[in-house]
Amino acid sequence: MVLAAKIVGPGNLEVQDFPYTKPGPNAVTIKVEMCGICGTDKHTFRGENTQYGGRPVQYPIIPGHEILGKILEIGSREEPLTDYYGSPLREGDRVIVLPNIGCGKCYYCKHGFPPYFCPDTVDYGNLLNCNKPPYLFGGWAEVMYLLPGTTLFKAPDSMAPEIAVLTEVFAVTASLDKAKEFCTVANEGFRFGDTVLVQGAGPIGIAHLVKAQMLGAGRVIVVDKSDYRLALAKELGADYVFNIDELGLNKLLKSVMDITNGLGADVVVECAGVPEAIIQGLEFLRVGGMYVVVGIFVSLGEISFDPHRLILAKNARIIGIGGDEPTSYGPSMQLMAKWANFLPLNKIVTHRFKIADAKLAIQQALDLNSCKVVFEP
Amino acid sequence: MVLAAKIVGPGNLEVQDFPYTKPGPNAVTIKVEMCGICGTDKHTFRGENTQYGGRPVQYPIIPGHEILGKILEIGSREEPLTDYYGSPLREGDRVIVLPNIGCGKCYYCKHGFPPYFCPDTVDYGNLLNCNKPPYLFGGWAEVMYLLPGTTLFKAPDSMAPEIAVLTEVFAVTASLDKAKEFCTVANEGFRFGDTVLVQGAGPIGIAHLVKAQMLGAGRVIVVDKSDYRLALAKELGADYVFNIDELGLNKLLKSVMDITNGLGADVVVECAGVPEAIIQGLEFLRVGGMYVVVGIFVSLGEISFDPHRLILAKNARIIGIGGDEPTSYGPSMQLMAKWANFLPLNKIVTHRFKIADAKLAIQQALDLNSCKVVFEP
Amino acid sequence: MVLAAKIVGPGNLEVQDFPYTKPGPNAVTIKVEMCGICGTDKHTFRGENTQYGGRPVQYPIIPGHEILGKILEIGSREEPLTDYYGSPLREGDRVIVLPNIGCGKCYYCKHGFPPYFCPDTVDYGNLLNCNKPPYLFGGWAEVMYLLPGTTLFKAPDSMAPEIAVLTEVFAVTASLDKAKEFCTVANEGFRFGDTVLVQGAGPIGIAHLVKAQMLGAGRVIVVDKSDYRLALAKELGADYVFNIDELGLNKLLKSVMDITNGLGADVVVECAGVPEAIIQGLEFLRVGGMYVVVGIFVSLGEISFDPHRLILAKNARIIGIGGDEPTSYGPSMQLMAKWANFLPLNKIVTHRFKIADAKLAIQQALDLNSCKVVFEP
Amino acid sequence: MVLAAKIVGPGNLEVQDFPYTKPGPNAVTIKVEMCGICGTDKHTFRGENTQYGGRPVQYPIIPGHEILGKILEIGSREEPLTDYYGSPLREGDRVIVLPNIGCGKCYYCKHGFPPYFCPDTVDYGNLLNCNKPPYLFGGWAEVMYLLPGTTLFKAPDSMAPEIAVLTEVFAVTASLDKAKEFCTVANEGFRFGDTVLVQGAGPIGIAHLVKAQMLGAGRVIVVDKSDYRLALAKELGADYVFNIDELGLNKLLKSVMDITNGLGADVVVECAGVPEAIIQGLEFLRVGGMYVVVGIFVSLGEISFDPHRLILAKNARIIGIGGDEPTSYGPSMQLMAKWANFLPLNKIVTHRFKIADAKLAIQQALDLNSCKVVFEP
Repeated sequence: MVLAAKIVGPGNLEVQDFPYTKPGPNAVTIKVEMCGICGTDKHTFRGENTQYGGRPVQYPIIPGHEILGKILEIGSREEPLTDYYGSPLREGDRVIVLPNIGCGKCYYCKHGFPPYFCPDTVDYGNLLNCNKPPYLFGGWAEVMYLLPGTTLFKAPDSMAPEIAVLTEVFAVTASLDKAKEFCTVANEGFRFGDTVLVQGAGPIGIAHLVKAQMLGAGRVIVVDKSDYRLALAKELGADYVFNIDELGLNKLLKSVMDITNGLGADVVVECAGVPEAIIQGLEFLRVGGMYVVVGIFVSLGEISFDPHRLILAKNARIIGIGGDEPTSYGPSMQLMAKWANFLPLNKIVTHRFKIADAKLAIQQALDLNSCKVVFEP
Repeated sequence: MVLAAKIVGPGNLEVQDFPYTKPGPNAVTIKVEMCGICGTDKHTFRGENTQYGGRPVQYPIIPGHEILGKILEIGSREEPLTDYYGSPLREGDRVIVLPNIGCGKCYYCKHGFPPYFCPDTVDYGNLLNCNKPPYLFGGWAEVMYLLPGTTLFKAPDSMAPEIAVLTEVFAVTASLDKAKEFCTVANEGFRFGDTVLVQGAGPIGIAHLVKAQMLGAGRVIVVDKSDYRLALAKELGADYVFNIDELGLNKLLKSVMDITNGLGADVVVECAGVPEAIIQGLEFLRVGGMYVVVGIFVSLGEISFDPHRLILAKNARIIGIGGDEPTSYGPSMQLMAKWANFLPLNKIVTHRFKIADAKLAIQQALDLNSCKVVFEP
Repeated sequence: MVLAAKIVGPGNLEVQDFPYTKPGPNAVTIKVEMCGICGTDKHTFRGENTQYGGRPVQYPIIPGHEILGKILEIGSREEPLTDYYGSPLREGDRVIVLPNIGCGKCYYCKHGFPPYFCPDTVDYGNLLNCNKPPYLFGGWAEVMYLLPGTTLFKAPDSMAPEIAVLTEVFAVTASLDKAKEFCTVANEGFRFGDTVLVQGAGPIGIAHLVKAQMLGAGRVIVVDKSDYRLALAKELGADYVFNIDELGLNKLLKSVMDITNGLGADVVVECAGVPEAIIQGLEFLRVGGMYVVVGIFVSLGEISFDPHRLILAKNARIIGIGGDEPTSYGPSMQLMAKWANFLPLNKIVTHRFKIADAKLAIQQALDLNSCKVVFEP
Repeated sequence: MVLAAKIVGPGNLEVQDFPYTKPGPNAVTIKVEMCGICGTDKHTFRGENTQYGGRPVQYPIIPGHEILGKILEIGSREEPLTDYYGSPLREGDRVIVLPNIGCGKCYYCKHGFPPYFCPDTVDYGNLLNCNKPPYLFGGWAEVMYLLPGTTLFKAPDSMAPEIAVLTEVFAVTASLDKAKEFCTVANEGFRFGDTVLVQGAGPIGIAHLVKAQMLGAGRVIVVDKSDYRLALAKELGADYVFNIDELGLNKLLKSVMDITNGLGADVVVECAGVPEAIIQGLEFLRVGGMYVVVGIFVSLGEISFDPHRLILAKNARIIGIGGDEPTSYGPSMQLMAKWANFLPLNKIVTHRFKIADAKLAIQQALDLNSCKVVFEP
């Protein structure tokens, strides 16, 4: 039997034994080594389940899509199993799992978009529920069942699990690579030396703080309402941290303007997950700056603002990023390994739990005195 | 004396004689051949004068920044007068006037941004009022006075005035060049063959309709509430035109989805000038599409929407374009001349008035049964 | 039996009957309606067979990869046959064939590159020879056999065959979309209004001439040594045509500089297929301009030049384009249909032959008094 | 009197006293704190003086354009002196000097290109000779005379001179920002995690090694023929260093392929300054990779290669970078300050000399057992 944590419905988490199913043709099972609790999982727990632009989560589900594991069994196959980069995979190999599988046939799959664009995407720990065998479609479990077509990334044995488990989170920061793609000599996007302001110092915010430095940010400003998280941000290289609850929006805005010679931040990244962050974020942005919306993964209501002032007259460039890209996993692992020499990346995981303690784990994750909370089955 | 039309205050337009001032050192005067009435001018007339992200218009002003004229007198100079491309300019030469002058010292001027980014930009027909000599800082006049540093573009004598006068309007469509710059193989921005939807068939909308074709749009859909303007859009190459008032938003949205195989338009351009257009525009947009906000030049209130659904989950790319670029004037003239062979560009100017009839002119411009209304002093 | 033309070896073309093979699972057969003779085919005929960066053509082959046909038979399938855009396909439907099939597993296929990047790409009319059943892997035949995984594009019945057959050629001009992608406000790549110089007025050159106009070129200059082809270029919108053999390089260079105010062309496209064109092309280019190498599909020897002068000091941007992209086929068809109203695209096909007259056809294609020569089986 | 080193002609260096000239209107004089010896200076010394695409150096000149100094006197001005970012400048302030001044009128200056594109650019230490008063137009001197219009950058007092003096060298690495600008999801340019190969471990090569890391390179490979320099590269973060003279080209190529799974480097940067490096560099490059030519600042002869194989079939993207951009100076200083915490940037300057010892200094700079050699007047 396999122990797993499932969300039965809003606010209702249970730990349960599921039967193990041997992998069918082209499927794989893995033993979970570590799996993170994502902000989306917290929304799912709270019942905020209009996600991915309208698709409702179908309870019950086993959450968990930030997955580090070891291959347990490989189903029958015509061709040998390989990872995304073509490396052969065998039982016992350590892997990261890409949580999405695209349909391969739609406009987006045909045109080279990452699978999170696919309207029929399969999504571990979110859109696949645990009503039917083989049940084990989420990472908050001792074992996972991976469908044919799942993309795997070989993880080096030498990498600390608390860093390897962040690969999916760092892959989300392809948002900043995208911002960089929009960069031109004429000062679009995210340029070398730019001031980047990150709204929110949860795991996604911290990952963006680190990624901004990896890509050549000049200064990074981090805003949150938790001193615990801001202290962590400081340790991870933030040049300035501000507690928005203590300071208030006006003083914060003034501080940002002082730091930037009255211009505003060149790039602002919304990692706060609340609608009102977007209006604040556009205020922090310089004219012609780039605003990256990457945190608000769940529908939490509307915002209201003057589009003349905050979009047109500001010449704002705004990009929404709804997921992570397979092409980012390898580089994320590689660069986390390098930057672990420069910054204490091992401190991003702040709390570890067993599956049996799932209720404690989700409470800890909801507490602002934590950053990344993980399961270690 | 020089006859000019001035807006004294909201709703209050007068025609008046101003004294002529000979140009001082490095200044120039021009005889206006033709000058357009812009949507911004209509807002100024209506008293909607919070423009350019907060700077209020200081009445009284002589409006008019879409200016075609002939050089009347050239003030004393150390070096010969040349146009933007280095062509020598003499009295009698036909020119287009760039309405903005940047300060040359600020962050934006130093970093190669166009002058409309400059916080201290000088702006003919808008930010310069007519309280003091030399008064004549707008194009709704027989003569204009151009300050030192004004950029001029030589216009070919062979070009019909009703096409040459559109140069500034077409220069605004550098918005679509910007959208094209954001284009990548991975399907950002405005790609060859894309479906472009233009909201609003006033002069700016019509210019974007034409420019979209010039840049390789596959299909252009135009939405307006005036059948008069939609008929013009059809003549100017629109593949589909829809009257949103007749059809209603839901049926219109369904039509757009039918045309685009259920995806939505790849690029949507807001040329409607009203806040609610933005919410509608984001609905028309495909996932990962680009939304260009180029019409709402004046503050007209707030909009309210769910940023999860319309930005993040949609992976929207939104760019605000607050003006036109000097680099676009030459290419705009060149390509209008070419495309006049393919499409009846001469029909975009629908009504012509003398300065003395300025009240009639502004009424005609406010009437939806017109497109570009111009003064022919 | 199926009549086809095969190249047995250098200079040796034969017409032969092949047996027809019914399509196996997931395969398709088509009746060829029209198929072009490409420059690469001419090289193959001449024995210049080090193509695609080193892979030698393995004679005998049935050439032909510019293929318009009608579906003859569809092999057994689990899912219905659809085209690239998801349109259902039935027997009798008119289709364009994508000549390449990627392996789906390599670095390039995994990272969203078009299949011509794939080192194991399958290539109709070039890398697949006709030694074994089902033989019919080229378009110079009455019927073709298409392997499982072949990408098809539905062609409208209303489109003239002499235009539809150009779809693959136009898809190669994604080179200019790529040049446009490199465009920034700071004047990289191919901007609106730019001067584009096309070296060579064969079918690829003519396609680039038209595509440059479709994407907003200000002026197009075409250079060739055949007056026949230059006259065609003029009809298809070239602003200037020059016969390099008559004029000589120095006078030609002077003419280009005169047209461009001494700057040189913003974009130069090599469609000549000979190594020395590259050195000439870099001379025509303005400082900071973009040079697109898209014609030299076959190894024909080395060139020699000073990289300080022609690359570094010129701040040149040079891109090699080794094939066409599936994403370009639909837009190419759509825009050719539109532009057939503006320019006589139907004149690009200058000569038509039956398969039985293949020797005459190849001779005509080698003659500079032709542009696109096609088979009409 | 002011002591300075001048190159009288090829191989002929003299130290001489020049009279000091007080700065005229809008001019400035500075006391040189430190000035580097650039590769270009070494070419000038050797008599390899066809630089900048053809403009010959006019001996005698005082070389030196990597300039750190303190403001000595400020000539009369109408407006207060400020640095590029608007900070006020006073006598005694520490500054970096931008070596180029654009004309402000040509196509390139008008279109936002950096001044090194300007055909009439003024260039300290290179194009301005020392035949006439005020003579002091190079940094190998105790004092420099700066013409009106010279761009200055305030340098923080806290920055070690051996790091501040590298600002101009690092500004040249805007080449990699440019490579990054060309980056798209579809794998153009320089992406996060990419393998960057730097040819040459002189100061420019070392700067690119560091900059590649600042911008998110996954791995950096450095190739040189000096073990001294390769050891320095290793200390400054190179993942692999290879001595091409010891290893030979074939073994080196095999090593690069082994490191990159047989693909080749994603980005190769030519910092070697010799023509043959370009052919080798294209061999190291993966299909679709980006080649940056930034080292060959002087004409040293021709190279010969097959453009089919190394450009077209390789789908190469090649960019020549002929100088540095003012927009890069501030970010370079900022990021060098940050990275001095991660890597020993202070070791890049390996040797320091007095002006009086200029002959020893140039000999040391020509010796491969050095990296950056500087004057400390």
